Amino acid sequence: MSTFTSSTRTQVAIVGGGPAGLMLSHLLHRAGIASIVLDTRTYEQIETTHRAGILERDSVRLLVESGVSDRVLTDGHEHQGIDLRFDGISHRIDFQELVGASCWLYPQTDVFIDLHAARVRDDGDLRYGIADTLVTDHRETPRVVYSDTDGRHEIRADLVVGADGSRSICRDLVADPQRLFREYPFAWFGILTEAPRSAPELIYTRSPFGFALISQRTESVQRMYFQCDPAENPDEWSDDRIWAELQRRLAGPDGFSLQEGPIIDKGVLPFRSFVQTPMRDGKLLLAGDAAHTVPPTGAKGLNLALADVQVLAETIERTLLADDETALDSYTERALARVWKAQHFSYWMTTMLHKASDASDFDERRQLGELETLTASESGSAYLAEGYTGWPSA
Amino acid sequence: MSTFTSSTRTQVAIVGGGPAGLMLSHLLHRAGIASIVLDTRTYEQIETTHRAGILERDSVRLLVESGVSDRVLTDGHEHQGIDLRFDGISHRIDFQELVGASCWLYPQTDVFIDLHAARVRDDGDLRYGIADTLVTDHRETPRVVYSDTDGRHEIRADLVVGADGSRSICRDLVADPQRLFREYPFAWFGILTEAPRSAPELIYTRSPFGFALISQRTESVQRMYFQCDPAENPDEWSDDRIWAELQRRLAGPDGFSLQEGPIIDKGVLPFRSFVQTPMRDGKLLLAGDAAHTVPPTGAKGLNLALADVQVLAETIERTLLADDETALDSYTERALARVWKAQHFSYWMTTMLHKASDASDFDERRQLGELETLTASESGSAYLAEGYTGWPSA
Repeated sequence: MSTFTSSTRTQVAIVGGGPAGLMLSHLLHRAGIASIVLDTRTYEQIETTHRAGILERDSVRLLVESGVSDRVLTDGHEHQGIDLRFDGISHRIDFQELVGASCWLYPQTDVFIDLHAARVRDDGDLRYGIADTLVTDHRETPRVVYSDTDGRHEIRADLVVGADGSRSICRDLVADPQRLFREYPFAWFGILTEAPRSAPELIYTRSPFGFALISQRTESVQRMYFQCDPAENPDEWSDDRIWAELQRRLAGPDGFSLQEGPIIDKGVLPFRSFVQTPMRDGKLLLAGDAAHTVPPTGAKGLNLALADVQVLAETIERTLLADDETALDSYTERALARVWKAQHFSYWMTTMLHKASDASDFDERRQLGELETLTASESGSAYLAEGYTGWPSA
Repeated sequence: MSTFTSSTRTQVAIVGGGPAGLMLSHLLHRAGIASIVLDTRTYEQIETTHRAGILERDSVRLLVESGVSDRVLTDGHEHQGIDLRFDGISHRIDFQELVGASCWLYPQTDVFIDLHAARVRDDGDLRYGIADTLVTDHRETPRVVYSDTDGRHEIRADLVVGADGSRSICRDLVADPQRLFREYPFAWFGILTEAPRSAPELIYTRSPFGFALISQRTESVQRMYFQCDPAENPDEWSDDRIWAELQRRLAGPDGFSLQEGPIIDKGVLPFRSFVQTPMRDGKLLLAGDAAHTVPPTGAKGLNLALADVQVLAETIERTLLADDETALDSYTERALARVWKAQHFSYWMTTMLHKASDASDFDERRQLGELETLTASESGSAYLAEGYTGWPSA
């Protein structure tokens, strides 16, 4: 028999205090369902982790309409399209014109800050910087125990949610999971640079030297990426070498000018696709990166986590408020329908724009044939725009 | 010094008397340009070779509007869409509704018969069943020499066209060609069966056991295919074994019923993509399979040959009638723009529906994710319909 410094009863214990966990807690709060959010990281650790920055239309709608924050609309940047660039010429995919939707450039860190502020405002129970998290009895009487400087604590809950990211401890509790992987033979070299904007919106570039992406952060700090070998060592890349590589990938007859500046951060991002199914076992449910990761090309990671959480909040409401015992049964299927769309979209954007190390001359020319067909076709462009700005919720 | 039984002067010597060569000869005749068509095969050999049977909208328009024949409209079958079938359920892609176009089921053999009849009607000079064809001096003063039972003959021409199919002798005359290949790790097992129609239109089927295609020929004879190993031996496939394989690939909860009958023809079709560039050297120009082949999934082979020939007829008119010496220079680029669209489309249809031998569970589920996204999206479906019914001419 162990004794605990504290023992708390709640309706939903949420393991993971990133955007997915906080958004779920927020949505449950609005439905009158109590939750506790736990994370081994501190607030400061999460706040200083740079991550993706493109929000789908419905992700922005969720933040605003659920009362998290309007800040995305004032501090974020509406992007009404992207450029697909190949053969040195940019082709605009105009989301608004094609599908009447926009994306928003708004860093994940800011989404986290807004969600955290909303939960604090509403007296949410948030426990960061804890240690030794353990989930037990998740099929019958879920319990989460963890340690902090005061000792060992216990939380008893009706349901437990694993929103604990790509190194999830919760997903290992699912019995007989099917784990589906796809490794990509390349990575992204990412930089932050103190430079003015080179373009108002994102430029996805296919070049004979590999993929490059020109993105933005603020007026004076920009985010850029270029395809590289997964084993690349950032320390071997001087600023001059990085700019030379980006410049040659962006070069073209249309006079596009890439603005340079001091590089203030650099690193290599791995490429990996992963899906675990089922996303539920007993009274444990997974959401976001804990259940799936996508390569960054489609900008789907955060958006997919927020989409999971919307389905999950509704599932939990039906389970706890409407006593609908079948609600939990359909969660995996409902969430995965969108996950596989996003996995395909990310794969498509990746393979359409990256240079495979084993690509033949035929493959390279065929790839250009796809980009030529797509950008010349209104329906093809609309199909891409639909995926990029996000499919309607199921 | 050799002597010839006959020596003839014409404007365009066309090596190859299949649909591409005959259509070119027909279009040139209408423009007042003389040509001679040569083929080592006999009329009967070509007439009895079974080939593809789906014509794009503009291929039908070309046959009708250029005065070849209206028979495609009376004896052919208008297909206003196809079915994409996966997870045992068919999803209709309605071409008319999506892009206002149809395809026509009309066997290539009938296209050949119509074109041949049109050239005979117009007193075309057609020489089938010849031997030992040789093209010389194609950069300055093109000449084609060949043998028949009367002896050795010479044709002197302003231009020579290689429309001599996938075993072209003409393409080898192009200096420093770039030859781009893609091999696919599978083939199609094709059958003709004496059975009633199972469906009014084509059914492209993705199953866990591989691809299958249900097509039609007449009221009482049907064409079907299923993905197989390229090394498969048709003799090892009894009727029962073939029907069992097709039945399991078509099976599904929607009650689709595949009609069986005696199998009257069977064989293995190879899968291969090939493009040679340039498609012109001096006064020699290539068209159709002589310059490119596509896998059969997109039904693009014959249509691409007819599209080449339209560009080529216009190119030759500008060269010979308008003395525009730059016309020849742009032929390769104009023809290849469509070829690469078709290569991509064929690749897309192939990879979306076939089972790769090295496909992981992730790849298979991602493939279903694509089919789910595409069939749920009007713009995605329209993008496919555009490619299938044929892009507008450049």
